[in-house]
Amino acid sequence: MNELTINLNVKSRTPLYEQIYSYIKNDIQKSALKSGERLPSTRALSKHLDVSRSTVELAYEQLLSEGYIESEPYKGFFVAEIDELYQLKPASRELSFPEQKKKEEKYPYDFSPNGVDLKSFPYNTWRKLSKDILTDDKSELFRLGDSQGEPGLRNAICSYLHQARGVNCRPEQMIVGAGNDYLLMLLGTILGQKHRIALENPTYKQSYRLFKNLSYEVCTVGMDHRGMIVDELEHSGADIAFVMPSHQYPLGVVMPLKRRMSLLKWAGEVPGRYIIEDDYDSEFRYKGKPIPALQGYDVNGKVIYIGTFSKSIAPAIRMSYMILPEPLLEIYYRKSRFMNSTVSKVDQMILQHFIEDGYFERHLNKTRALYKSRHDTLMNCLKPLQDCCSISGENAGVHLLLHFHNGMTEEELIEKAKAVGVKIYGLSDYDVRGGEGQDKLQPTILLGYANMNEQKIAEAIRLLEKEFVTA
Amino acid sequence: MNELTINLNVKSRTPLYEQIYSYIKNDIQKSALKSGERLPSTRALSKHLDVSRSTVELAYEQLLSEGYIESEPYKGFFVAEIDELYQLKPASRELSFPEQKKKEEKYPYDFSPNGVDLKSFPYNTWRKLSKDILTDDKSELFRLGDSQGEPGLRNAICSYLHQARGVNCRPEQMIVGAGNDYLLMLLGTILGQKHRIALENPTYKQSYRLFKNLSYEVCTVGMDHRGMIVDELEHSGADIAFVMPSHQYPLGVVMPLKRRMSLLKWAGEVPGRYIIEDDYDSEFRYKGKPIPALQGYDVNGKVIYIGTFSKSIAPAIRMSYMILPEPLLEIYYRKSRFMNSTVSKVDQMILQHFIEDGYFERHLNKTRALYKSRHDTLMNCLKPLQDCCSISGENAGVHLLLHFHNGMTEEELIEKAKAVGVKIYGLSDYDVRGGEGQDKLQPTILLGYANMNEQKIAEAIRLLEKEFVTA
Repeated sequence: MNELTINLNVKSRTPLYEQIYSYIKNDIQKSALKSGERLPSTRALSKHLDVSRSTVELAYEQLLSEGYIESEPYKGFFVAEIDELYQLKPASRELSFPEQKKKEEKYPYDFSPNGVDLKSFPYNTWRKLSKDILTDDKSELFRLGDSQGEPGLRNAICSYLHQARGVNCRPEQMIVGAGNDYLLMLLGTILGQKHRIALENPTYKQSYRLFKNLSYEVCTVGMDHRGMIVDELEHSGADIAFVMPSHQYPLGVVMPLKRRMSLLKWAGEVPGRYIIEDDYDSEFRYKGKPIPALQGYDVNGKVIYIGTFSKSIAPAIRMSYMILPEPLLEIYYRKSRFMNSTVSKVDQMILQHFIEDGYFERHLNKTRALYKSRHDTLMNCLKPLQDCCSISGENAGVHLLLHFHNGMTEEELIEKAKAVGVKIYGLSDYDVRGGEGQDKLQPTILLGYANMNEQKIAEAIRLLEKEFVTA
Repeated sequence: MNELTINLNVKSRTPLYEQIYSYIKNDIQKSALKSGERLPSTRALSKHLDVSRSTVELAYEQLLSEGYIESEPYKGFFVAEIDELYQLKPASRELSFPEQKKKEEKYPYDFSPNGVDLKSFPYNTWRKLSKDILTDDKSELFRLGDSQGEPGLRNAICSYLHQARGVNCRPEQMIVGAGNDYLLMLLGTILGQKHRIALENPTYKQSYRLFKNLSYEVCTVGMDHRGMIVDELEHSGADIAFVMPSHQYPLGVVMPLKRRMSLLKWAGEVPGRYIIEDDYDSEFRYKGKPIPALQGYDVNGKVIYIGTFSKSIAPAIRMSYMILPEPLLEIYYRKSRFMNSTVSKVDQMILQHFIEDGYFERHLNKTRALYKSRHDTLMNCLKPLQDCCSISGENAGVHLLLHFHNGMTEEELIEKAKAVGVKIYGLSDYDVRGGEGQDKLQPTILLGYANMNEQKIAEAIRLLEKEFVTA
């Protein structure tokens, strides 16, 4: 019998039983202890190593439970046949593959319209909630949950949407999912294939590409300063309209009530017509009261409402929600409810408590104040540019637009800004028609301010001013 | 000016500044403090309340940052216009909707073939990792991540799959997603619509329904004791075969090497043919060495490999992975990589460390030992039934099958078991052909043992014995 002289380190942070366990496991793995070989009794080994017997027992129990040793009553412990056991070598921490991301050029100033300020993310709260939840709950937390999302979370989101957005819904109508892309894919299984979807032009290209990918017929409908032109929609042959009435991306248009009503009327005229309302950043409005969601005016079950916590909390938490009108809910129950939830229960519980315990309200007011101050600074700084461009899309969201009439093209504007270290974004990137069949758009750039502090905004605009304002 | 006599509770767990903040916020919300009204200076209020000035300053800062008050230089603090602020009433914790789940009948003994033992889930490890990760990392953790999944996690999974399953892949080929359903939906956007998918019959109905939902043509191909019959597949007109070679669900067949080769040959014969390998519970084998995944033998880029942590860790963590062969990877990059990841970064980091730090190896060996012991107990207990049924699908996974020849129909078997409090599952539930065009299947039941301890298994089988063994 092997004497098992293990060099124990009493000062180590690794408990003694764990050191014994690792030593023996190691010996078994490298065949220093062979299959069938008998181990010393717990009493003998504890004496030999001068540790308590229960320490050795703990180590043996661990080895037993993982199948490295076997116990035979009245005979003792024996090394098991370990061919069948998992012995995983750690992966090399060096990534075996080169990072594929294109090296994005770093600009000193970046007016990305997709930014989110993550400095104000309530890390400590999130950690605390996460810890509390993993302490309180046990196995229920890791059992497969409700495929629509946990009832408690849906209840909390519904209550928020009702108060903050005038959304009219019951938690039964809501599906929580891992991001808008996923929810739109799921919606595809409910609606089925044969649809023609009309998007605003210009629009959020991610949605456009997604609908194309899901094999829908996709068309675009022009916009005026009130949003999607309903006459054009009427003639497009589309039966589904995808709109962002609260703050259209990228144009920043807020759809007035009258246009909303025309859109609802269009949907109501033919059975099977639907409106998808993407309410992606409606949390942020800096002037006047927020306009309730289109969904709140819908009395005929025509609006599919989609919202996300990517903008209001953080992009990487991957939680969005979709509210189905009754006719589609019925199809969902019949056809697609069997598909499992895409959000882990732990994450759902964290979010539920974040909302219920008042942290979400605080966080919204804080980021809103932050973005408002950046918005106001930007508007102020832009004054010297007012002779060469006009502003639109302000007072909501986290970006605005500048329409130039200083003779420069969009490419020129972007190049000149780049030369002084400022990244700005051209509107034509969002034009899915590619400028065809319509007048070339006025040179327009987007300025996002979510991820720039006041000082940087001021500095960057001063740099742009020198380039854009022709003497 | 309001004197703000706040009843502070020094013994409360709520910090003093928070009590002051809440009191003032409350007064503002209920208009006891009106818009434009001036607040006492921090000095005056700290004197009045007999607290330190910094306590009051903290409270004012909080109110400022959330937009409840405004500061005017040299003048002081004033109540803001709060019409625009979020004031969310908590949702009633009482759910406003009745639980919709059908009340499932509780059986004293349930041989569910979909069980997972959650008692052995390493809660403490999971909590510790979660805490560490939320402490270490900061904003990067909440920024949008790689749409394929974090490179570190993909590296760790690849290394595991290579060692444990003989899977041959680079991390670039892997996509991490929130569950198999999602990954199959994503695969749909890569493959496009026009395919005919062949599934084994009987099969896992979830996949069958999903493919139907995604508007594929779906057909079934019969099985013999080696798995999907390749001749039948050849004549089915299918170009995609969905198989579970490691342990077919529900039949438990392990596909031998020769059949695997025939299947790969079938795929290689015509460009555009693919095999989807669902390796859902291959972690658990109790006899002999595990057979490497079909993917490991594929030299022509024909196998799409899908695996999950639902069985090996827990269903509710919602993490699966898909490995694309090169030709499809190229399409993914071009067509579908723009879609955002469906798994939160925090969860990905927890899993990465769980694998890298050796916890996954331990957990696998532990659950494997646990399931093996339950498997062995079940096999032992079944001996008295050997005259009325034969066993198949044993030695792997977490369920086995009993084929009866005691004259009872499947319905009768299930009813008799129910009468003594034992829930068993009929094979015909998995027959998507509905028994048409083939001989009626032999009465067969599934017994899952993942979620039953040895004692319960013994008790339940004794009950069944009395019912099924005809004297």
